[in-house]
Amino acid sequence: MAINTNPVRGTRDYLPEEMRIRDAMQNIILRSYLNNGFTKIETPILEDIERLDKSEGGENLNLIFKILKRGQKLDLTKDNLTENDLVDIGLRFDLTLPLCRYYANNRAKLRLPFKVIQIGKVYRAERPQKGRLREFYQCDIDIIGDSTINAEIELIHTTAKTLLKLGFEDFTVRINDRRILFDVILSAGFKEEDILSVCISFDKLDKIGLEGVKEELLQKEFAVENVDKFIASISADNAKGLEGITEYCSNRQVIDQLQVIIDSVEKLAKGKFKIEYDKSLVRGMGYYTGTIFEIVSPEFKGSIAGGGRYDKMIGNMIGEDIPAVGFSIGFERIAEILLNSDKIKLKLEDKRLALLYDEQDSFVDVIEKADELREKGYDVSTILKAKKLGRQFATLEREGFEGALVYGETEIRQFSTD
Amino acid sequence: MAINTNPVRGTRDYLPEEMRIRDAMQNIILRSYLNNGFTKIETPILEDIERLDKSEGGENLNLIFKILKRGQKLDLTKDNLTENDLVDIGLRFDLTLPLCRYYANNRAKLRLPFKVIQIGKVYRAERPQKGRLREFYQCDIDIIGDSTINAEIELIHTTAKTLLKLGFEDFTVRINDRRILFDVILSAGFKEEDILSVCISFDKLDKIGLEGVKEELLQKEFAVENVDKFIASISADNAKGLEGITEYCSNRQVIDQLQVIIDSVEKLAKGKFKIEYDKSLVRGMGYYTGTIFEIVSPEFKGSIAGGGRYDKMIGNMIGEDIPAVGFSIGFERIAEILLNSDKIKLKLEDKRLALLYDEQDSFVDVIEKADELREKGYDVSTILKAKKLGRQFATLEREGFEGALVYGETEIRQFSTD
Repeated sequence: MAINTNPVRGTRDYLPEEMRIRDAMQNIILRSYLNNGFTKIETPILEDIERLDKSEGGENLNLIFKILKRGQKLDLTKDNLTENDLVDIGLRFDLTLPLCRYYANNRAKLRLPFKVIQIGKVYRAERPQKGRLREFYQCDIDIIGDSTINAEIELIHTTAKTLLKLGFEDFTVRINDRRILFDVILSAGFKEEDILSVCISFDKLDKIGLEGVKEELLQKEFAVENVDKFIASISADNAKGLEGITEYCSNRQVIDQLQVIIDSVEKLAKGKFKIEYDKSLVRGMGYYTGTIFEIVSPEFKGSIAGGGRYDKMIGNMIGEDIPAVGFSIGFERIAEILLNSDKIKLKLEDKRLALLYDEQDSFVDVIEKADELREKGYDVSTILKAKKLGRQFATLEREGFEGALVYGETEIRQFSTD
Repeated sequence: MAINTNPVRGTRDYLPEEMRIRDAMQNIILRSYLNNGFTKIETPILEDIERLDKSEGGENLNLIFKILKRGQKLDLTKDNLTENDLVDIGLRFDLTLPLCRYYANNRAKLRLPFKVIQIGKVYRAERPQKGRLREFYQCDIDIIGDSTINAEIELIHTTAKTLLKLGFEDFTVRINDRRILFDVILSAGFKEEDILSVCISFDKLDKIGLEGVKEELLQKEFAVENVDKFIASISADNAKGLEGITEYCSNRQVIDQLQVIIDSVEKLAKGKFKIEYDKSLVRGMGYYTGTIFEIVSPEFKGSIAGGGRYDKMIGNMIGEDIPAVGFSIGFERIAEILLNSDKIKLKLEDKRLALLYDEQDSFVDVIEKADELREKGYDVSTILKAKKLGRQFATLEREGFEGALVYGETEIRQFSTD
């Protein structure tokens, strides 16, 4: 009789206490984004399978959940069936492709620059391993239609402010520009068509170290002198900042702009967080065309936010390039940090109260008493009084209730708060 | 080059102005649910296909979006492929089945009664017609583990309060009990196994009228005297309320309980809305076992909320019956009403301000000025000043901005508000 009631592999049920923290976090993020002048939209989770397949989603294209055609569109009698015969829709793997489609579809009604918020679920059919979810939230802000570095400054400033509001401290924004990276690769003697392959190896720096990158590039049979020159350039002293890279990069304007972004963000940061040029920053997505950035915190592994400029993606849809930059907070990563950190504690604003009643009490009267307390700003649960009141109080306190009122009494019993 | 950028058929893009209203509505609903002592959870949109197929979802079972198996699990070389060979996951078509699975899976960690909120997207592969969305929101509250009518009273009271908060007035809660309905059908002479078929015809009362129901029942070749007796019983004077049905129904306890629910809700309503027994209420879902209810408003066609008791559904999963009742607000229906109504106007709480700057202004200084205003409670967008300031003001006002400050000036220009 009993059936398996686990959630689908790679998805999760969230218990009430965890949900409360997650919702409070999403509220802080959304409020901060709105406060900084961004506007919220929503796009469908379903996307045309062709649109997903044609996007520059890199690795994610192999991880799309695909939806079976329905009704007469599904023909299982055909010979040599392929996946393409069977599906017409996929689940979105990020919020950037749907945003570009959204902009393209509604651009007649949108004012540029379009400063936009998306908070929503995305889906990736990852091989389930520890911590790899197949359904998870992303919290993105994007600015469409601004080719100036004001867009970068505002996105970084807003995202950093948001992380500060969540309680994060001492984090660092790392920034780079793909055009510098590509320039460095080309000036080391690689060919244009090798850039991607070099980047893929270079992106593993964190995991395999400089020696590992060198080894992998040599295994790919690139010329030894090119590999050496590249390794030398990226070994240049990071402390020198952008100046350290100029001898390997001819694109002075890009370097100057990056310097203005860094100086501006630094001024706005007022010492609360750092920003630094990181020549080893690659970031995976194929669609980035200029600046790329991420936020790391010394206490926590990996990045907690990431983004960059993608000036060609909308152009691929409408045949006219529209500049765009985005910055995404890795919601599941920061939720994990906040739920397990002793240092960062989220302040929950709601005041929850239990109104305990007897079976003999008139339930209508109990509700009217609850409504009275609700009008005063408490969130009130009516709960049948247990025989062992002390144990019931302990349970309620553990659930996050602030106190309890026994129906008929006048004094609220406040639970101890730490 | 240009590609189709429409959203997937049956899904929608929401423009910023509409999103603002929708989000404000969802906030009001969520805040009201929380204020009334319910707790929020979230379940995955993905569900096991077997679990969906085995559920009592009625018509919805034909409308499931199904997800193709991945990797080696997908074998297209097999002879006589069926849909079942190809899929392992489906998208949820409501929030009730996932809730039951959630409860079953986490029951060791949940206190009963479990008063729970779910606000989320559900999916139905409806034949797209005007207004029929394939991706839409439901806003549900449920009480699991309370077999008493307190659960019904609290759900109806909370849902009605929520609709009042949204600005709805003069609505009516209709209530019935499946056990009365079944009793009436049996006492008319029908057999137990005919109940479902009679209900299906009876559910069409709104559309085809009493004569139409009678005709359809006769076409189904039920005995004339049974049909006549049934039609007579449901033609009994509605104004007599529950008393009018007693002669056709032997289950006195059910009638008495229904009367207490009606009296209790009426007392709590304080004249702000009505509740009435409606013997013609059937409601489609196969899983309801007792009370069923919905909310209608004379001004708007169809119901704006619906629910009922489903005491067997969790038992189907864990082999032990756990009582449960739920009430769901049809979010898309009320969003449609609120967006088009002249009578109901949602009050938006946020104060949005545009900070207009010149290209010559230091963008860092502009952001610092914006931050100053943000600290004061304004949501501030930094926007490049247009040449035609009057036209820009008009655009911003149309977008919902409350006013604008030209950077360098001291006075905020408030837009007229109606």
